[in-house]
Amino acid sequence: MAGEDRRRGRWKSGAEPGGKSAQASESKDTSGDLPIFRDGMRIGLINIGDELLLGKILNTNARDLAGWIAELGHELAFNLTIGDHADAISHTLRSVVSESGVLPRCGMLILTGGLGPTRDDITREAVAEFLGQPLEFSREAEAWLAERLGVSADKINEGQRQQLHIPGGSIPLRNTAGTACGFRVEKNGINIFAFPGVPYEFRTMFDEHCRPLLLRRDAVLLHKRVVTFGLSESRQRECLKGFVTPEPFRFSSLPSEPGVTISLEAFVDSAEAEAMQTRLDQAWEEMLERFPAECIVERNGASLTETVFRLLKNSNRTVSVAESCTSGALGYLLTEIPGSSSVFRQGFLTYSYEAKNGLLNVPQELLEQHGAVSEPVALAMVRGCLKNSNTDYAVAITGIAGPDGGSEEKPVGLVYIAVASQKSVEVQKFVFRGDRKTNRWQSAYSALNRLRLLILKEL
Amino acid sequence: MAGEDRRRGRWKSGAEPGGKSAQASESKDTSGDLPIFRDGMRIGLINIGDELLLGKILNTNARDLAGWIAELGHELAFNLTIGDHADAISHTLRSVVSESGVLPRCGMLILTGGLGPTRDDITREAVAEFLGQPLEFSREAEAWLAERLGVSADKINEGQRQQLHIPGGSIPLRNTAGTACGFRVEKNGINIFAFPGVPYEFRTMFDEHCRPLLLRRDAVLLHKRVVTFGLSESRQRECLKGFVTPEPFRFSSLPSEPGVTISLEAFVDSAEAEAMQTRLDQAWEEMLERFPAECIVERNGASLTETVFRLLKNSNRTVSVAESCTSGALGYLLTEIPGSSSVFRQGFLTYSYEAKNGLLNVPQELLEQHGAVSEPVALAMVRGCLKNSNTDYAVAITGIAGPDGGSEEKPVGLVYIAVASQKSVEVQKFVFRGDRKTNRWQSAYSALNRLRLLILKEL
Repeated sequence: MAGEDRRRGRWKSGAEPGGKSAQASESKDTSGDLPIFRDGMRIGLINIGDELLLGKILNTNARDLAGWIAELGHELAFNLTIGDHADAISHTLRSVVSESGVLPRCGMLILTGGLGPTRDDITREAVAEFLGQPLEFSREAEAWLAERLGVSADKINEGQRQQLHIPGGSIPLRNTAGTACGFRVEKNGINIFAFPGVPYEFRTMFDEHCRPLLLRRDAVLLHKRVVTFGLSESRQRECLKGFVTPEPFRFSSLPSEPGVTISLEAFVDSAEAEAMQTRLDQAWEEMLERFPAECIVERNGASLTETVFRLLKNSNRTVSVAESCTSGALGYLLTEIPGSSSVFRQGFLTYSYEAKNGLLNVPQELLEQHGAVSEPVALAMVRGCLKNSNTDYAVAITGIAGPDGGSEEKPVGLVYIAVASQKSVEVQKFVFRGDRKTNRWQSAYSALNRLRLLILKEL
Repeated sequence: MAGEDRRRGRWKSGAEPGGKSAQASESKDTSGDLPIFRDGMRIGLINIGDELLLGKILNTNARDLAGWIAELGHELAFNLTIGDHADAISHTLRSVVSESGVLPRCGMLILTGGLGPTRDDITREAVAEFLGQPLEFSREAEAWLAERLGVSADKINEGQRQQLHIPGGSIPLRNTAGTACGFRVEKNGINIFAFPGVPYEFRTMFDEHCRPLLLRRDAVLLHKRVVTFGLSESRQRECLKGFVTPEPFRFSSLPSEPGVTISLEAFVDSAEAEAMQTRLDQAWEEMLERFPAECIVERNGASLTETVFRLLKNSNRTVSVAESCTSGALGYLLTEIPGSSSVFRQGFLTYSYEAKNGLLNVPQELLEQHGAVSEPVALAMVRGCLKNSNTDYAVAITGIAGPDGGSEEKPVGLVYIAVASQKSVEVQKFVFRGDRKTNRWQSAYSALNRLRLLILKEL
């Protein structure tokens, strides 16, 4: 029962520095204790905005918040998107606070969106109506905004001024990333936070006003993660046959173009942390042993891009590229990490026969005899690239990205990737099955991976 | 009241070809009429999956479905994400069908996710429980899957077989993109569809089983859209001062890296379509007149990438690029459109001083005197690129992408973009304020736009 109470998330208010005293009907005290949620808290997210229900934008806030909450050891119980309608908002809030509601009861409710200055921004009005409170102008928020804009309060314009109203009884939350004021209010033991929907403002305000309240002092997150490349999920399942994930850890496998990320993680009691860490370490080693070594990008969990950068930098080596069908995607990836000028020297985008011949000295006869998408041409490209760049390594890609240009003999998705060092040259054939965009990025990541394997071989 | 009935979306069942007769408690007839929703229907979306509530993936299905529904002239009333918990699913369904529920009552409810073969896929069980029906094995779905796999029914394995169960009284929906069977069932006048969460399967099944039912025969979508580049939303607001969007059209403005997309759209009665089209055309022309002509990428609504490709192709011209801080992003964009080999010849990724000097003949003294990120170097790069590529146009980018490498004089985000033809050379200075990734893509798109303006000037 005590656990149940904590799960509902009633906590002592006043954690907000400088928070003004509450006028809401809820009883509050201001003893200043931070909440402790040993078992984690249940949190609900409500996104407000017609643009989401019209499919105009992807809801990255929901994905980001879900990740933060999981990392902090709490539970996102639901994520609801509704339009800019006052009725829908207040109706939903009533459901969440009522014991009989359909939405799971939460200790914390986060609202995003609808705090702007335009007519369709009605979150503050809807929450005020739900609370049975009038909207009030916040002098505190006015002072923050004046400071942010570097003007006196009377220079704040009409639209900005509207964004400084909050429901009576709520506590204004400073926005250091924009002009809309957020607010926080407690109702029936549920802590409601309202933040702007602009992702950068949302992230900044969550970090300032929510994250500190959600740090669990009783439990720690133990986690391990690794990126694999070239290990399909079905092959992974084969490797893991008979492997039992030890309690209380959770196994997850997430595929994407830069590889499949595998993790084991759990929140454990601080008192048990040491024993659990040993259990995790053992299981982790046992698991990694089951995978082919060459498919593990980096045992410490680094991404493919980071790993290649680090391998080159640590060994003081440089690389250059020659790209046909990817036409820049590989050069882009090799310079994603700040400081990559120390390892990436130059690249050739050789989309045409002339360019392959002119910049990489691929013989015209070779192109005519085998076609641009062929093993001999990939090899000639990588040799030309290495020679003309004077780097330690070179990578070349030539392929048919699609959707047109395929034949029975050379289908769409056929790609040759060649890598070379001063000591050796290798080429590999791939057939990707995605659309043009996917085929191009898969080619670029596969080339990065071939480069990684060659560097490792020669270390 | 009649409108209200339609909005609730009761329709005659039997629209599914080959649908087996219903065993649910709901009365049904099978006269085969397709539904007509003159005023549009209210639709609800429920996404099921722990991976969404853990922030592991972005919910692209929700964005996509929202867009399809809007284009079809219906209303997405809410979008709820819940975890893989049978209670949460059946509880939510009960709320939507009950008049007193907190979620808006809908004529159609679409469920995605939880139809796979693993332990946590429990959507079919939860819906069966909600309906008070047992799960039943579908022989029809078994035959479809056997056909898809090209095997006899007895070769279908355990995991696949599990995916062929559907709640009693529901109609199986064929999945031509995967192995999980979908289903459809009517309850209290609400049509519930369950689809897999894999985006490609979801899209395929929506198109086959939902879209035909949602085609409005009474109304047509009238819409216009245009992409602007270099016109900030605040400048856009200035341009549109006093412009009144004519009823019933809806104005929207959506900023992104490839430009700001502006649209006017509305569903109108078929009988009024002609008159409304005239009204739209007039308003559209009036609106476009208010924008600086050079900011309109293409009056027909094409994207910046498409427009540059078409301008080059139609005039039989070619282009080459020299990239420093973007290191491939511009070359990538110039080859996004299939067939771009006819306009894109080659590119130089010149990340180092040596590469700028060696591949583009930028004098060493110039680099030392002004630094790589400077107007003279950008000009020398574009001249070298044009000369060494033998193309009609050349584009060069040099800048500081960040997060390090900035100074007071040359801040992070400082980028010089130069464009050249055989007749003229231009250079422009930009200061972008994003992170490394944003700065690099904004540089690439801005370079595309400078190229567009130069081609137009010389046409």
